[in-house]
Amino acid sequence: MLVSMLGCGVVGLGVYNIIKESEDFKIANVLVRPVEKDVVPETVFNIDDIVSDNSEVVLECMGGVDFAYMCAEKCIGAGKSFITSNKALVAAKGLELSRLAEEKGVSFLFSAACGGAIPVLHNISVARETDRILNCGGILNGTTNFILSSLREGKFVSYKEALDEAKKLGYAEADPTADVSGMDTMRKVILLSAVAFGKLPVDGYSVEGIENIDLCPYKYKRDEYTVKLIGRAKHNEDGSVTAYVEPAIFKTNSTFGSVNSNFNMAFYTGENSGRISIFGQGAGRVPTASAMMRDLTEILRTVKGSRSVMISESCEGVSVMNEAEKHNYILAFKGEKPEFTEPVSVAFMHSRVKKERESGRECFFAAFYENAEV
Amino acid sequence: MLVSMLGCGVVGLGVYNIIKESEDFKIANVLVRPVEKDVVPETVFNIDDIVSDNSEVVLECMGGVDFAYMCAEKCIGAGKSFITSNKALVAAKGLELSRLAEEKGVSFLFSAACGGAIPVLHNISVARETDRILNCGGILNGTTNFILSSLREGKFVSYKEALDEAKKLGYAEADPTADVSGMDTMRKVILLSAVAFGKLPVDGYSVEGIENIDLCPYKYKRDEYTVKLIGRAKHNEDGSVTAYVEPAIFKTNSTFGSVNSNFNMAFYTGENSGRISIFGQGAGRVPTASAMMRDLTEILRTVKGSRSVMISESCEGVSVMNEAEKHNYILAFKGEKPEFTEPVSVAFMHSRVKKERESGRECFFAAFYENAEV
Repeated sequence: MLVSMLGCGVVGLGVYNIIKESEDFKIANVLVRPVEKDVVPETVFNIDDIVSDNSEVVLECMGGVDFAYMCAEKCIGAGKSFITSNKALVAAKGLELSRLAEEKGVSFLFSAACGGAIPVLHNISVARETDRILNCGGILNGTTNFILSSLREGKFVSYKEALDEAKKLGYAEADPTADVSGMDTMRKVILLSAVAFGKLPVDGYSVEGIENIDLCPYKYKRDEYTVKLIGRAKHNEDGSVTAYVEPAIFKTNSTFGSVNSNFNMAFYTGENSGRISIFGQGAGRVPTASAMMRDLTEILRTVKGSRSVMISESCEGVSVMNEAEKHNYILAFKGEKPEFTEPVSVAFMHSRVKKERESGRECFFAAFYENAEV
Repeated sequence: MLVSMLGCGVVGLGVYNIIKESEDFKIANVLVRPVEKDVVPETVFNIDDIVSDNSEVVLECMGGVDFAYMCAEKCIGAGKSFITSNKALVAAKGLELSRLAEEKGVSFLFSAACGGAIPVLHNISVARETDRILNCGGILNGTTNFILSSLREGKFVSYKEALDEAKKLGYAEADPTADVSGMDTMRKVILLSAVAFGKLPVDGYSVEGIENIDLCPYKYKRDEYTVKLIGRAKHNEDGSVTAYVEPAIFKTNSTFGSVNSNFNMAFYTGENSGRISIFGQGAGRVPTASAMMRDLTEILRTVKGSRSVMISESCEGVSVMNEAEKHNYILAFKGEKPEFTEPVSVAFMHSRVKKERESGRECFFAAFYENAEV
């Protein structure tokens, strides 16, 4: 099978190398930006060279939304299947691209966009065919988990120190905002929700990151509890969706509490299967490339037109309802003793904290899970 | 798609109910033993009624080896795809049935036979197409994990008490020998190895269960460590396979240590993907039925002849080499202080203990994992 690629950076070169060793696939063209070096012999600089080539599948690992979307539209429009690891693209334009792919009878797969080598999107898309998915989510960002784990292990005394080390080790980008603000995790939750429930959250979700972790009362090695950044989506009885990202406190000997370093753990709960959790390396060149190869093999093996898009035709964009989901929270204002709240809704808690911050108070909050279940 | 079933007990009735609600599948016939009650309208009492019907796929959930094998041979021989949850059948006759299925161009799938709803065999069979699997295994038996977890939580003071409770709750069979001896776990390791490496261990593996857990020094709530029954298969550099089942001691805050109650956790390590661990309910009517439905959907969706058998044609039966794999063990003789061994091979440790027992000494041993990696 002849394939082309968009982008040949960290992940792209990983994919390129695996394909070069494979017997099933051959590379036609690789699009790189004119400023990049001409690293591989198949390099082209114009997307139209790929649109008009004989490749059946295009693999995108460039990142960014606008240019990637333009390329995706052109390639799918030309009848090529499209595989991407770009979660920002899928969160923003997944519905449109899925519909175009269905119209053209080609595949649009993105299992590398959530969890890297962890096959959670793949498994959910298989499971939903014979099961009803009730909820999904997990620890979905390796950078923040590395920072939280390092603080807990006592390697660093402050968020800033841990973040600097994460940058040095290549776990955090030069601009880590998307990671530490929780937005990267939220995009993954959006993808999980779209694939699991057929509902893609477009607004109303609540996102809290880890920037205020220095105020967290449970971040020390001696504690029985540990803090993790979790994302969650739930399909409510009335058809609405709950979706949010926030710090959460678990027992250290729980399944969630045991996820350390830059690892991820994703879960889904099926009505028949019960809770399934998948744990592994959530990012990195080779794991992410390996997830894109899984999608590529899927295209080769699957009956054309069946399970070709992970977001189904009937998927709709929805506003999130975070009023019904309630937690006990730990709330810590700078210079004050942390307080435990009564059960309050996710929406209430996030909006309360927003107001407090607007009035100039620094604070940290986290949902408190006495049991491992999220 | 028309399907028939063999057996309509706990799992069978679960599958039957899911299929009845599905739009993609219809049931032709259900074979039950003449002594069983005629519970469903599609009941037949003779396998030949199914061999000669128009079903494309047969789902087996009877258990046992000899009769199930005869049925499987007849059905596959008649050009029907075959799905089973029967790990004893696959461990004993998987090679023969896979080859027959490949010859006939039909599917032979058994992802429910290891880990119930946990899609570990499915994920390995997908992963191995673009990755090299280095090792696999896990906590693969819910009955023993329930017993070990209950003892640790201080719910019971002895192995016998915990086992009796497991029987009462339906987690253990009336005859629990296969579970507590480790043999059920070993059969699952055999399947994992066959799917992951294309090598089906036929002899030479080492199996130790949990019958001597009362002698274990780390079974109390206050301990930093906890004991689990793990199975493991490893593809060695020289092409040989290491495969064994034995108790192992983990930190309570490790991923393995956090698997409680009757849960399972399976893992595999791919050269590209790194370690992937999957955690969930390993048995039970609905989870196991849901895994069989996953295989059934796979047959519907997959290009005929591709990925149709989980054990590939080139799979070979091999003798296991347990000499190279070494651990520090904890060895506890009745009435004596437990000792820590130097690193010794799995084969050596299992054979040493066998000799000690032959000379009348009661003992318990477990591999000691300071880190979470198995």
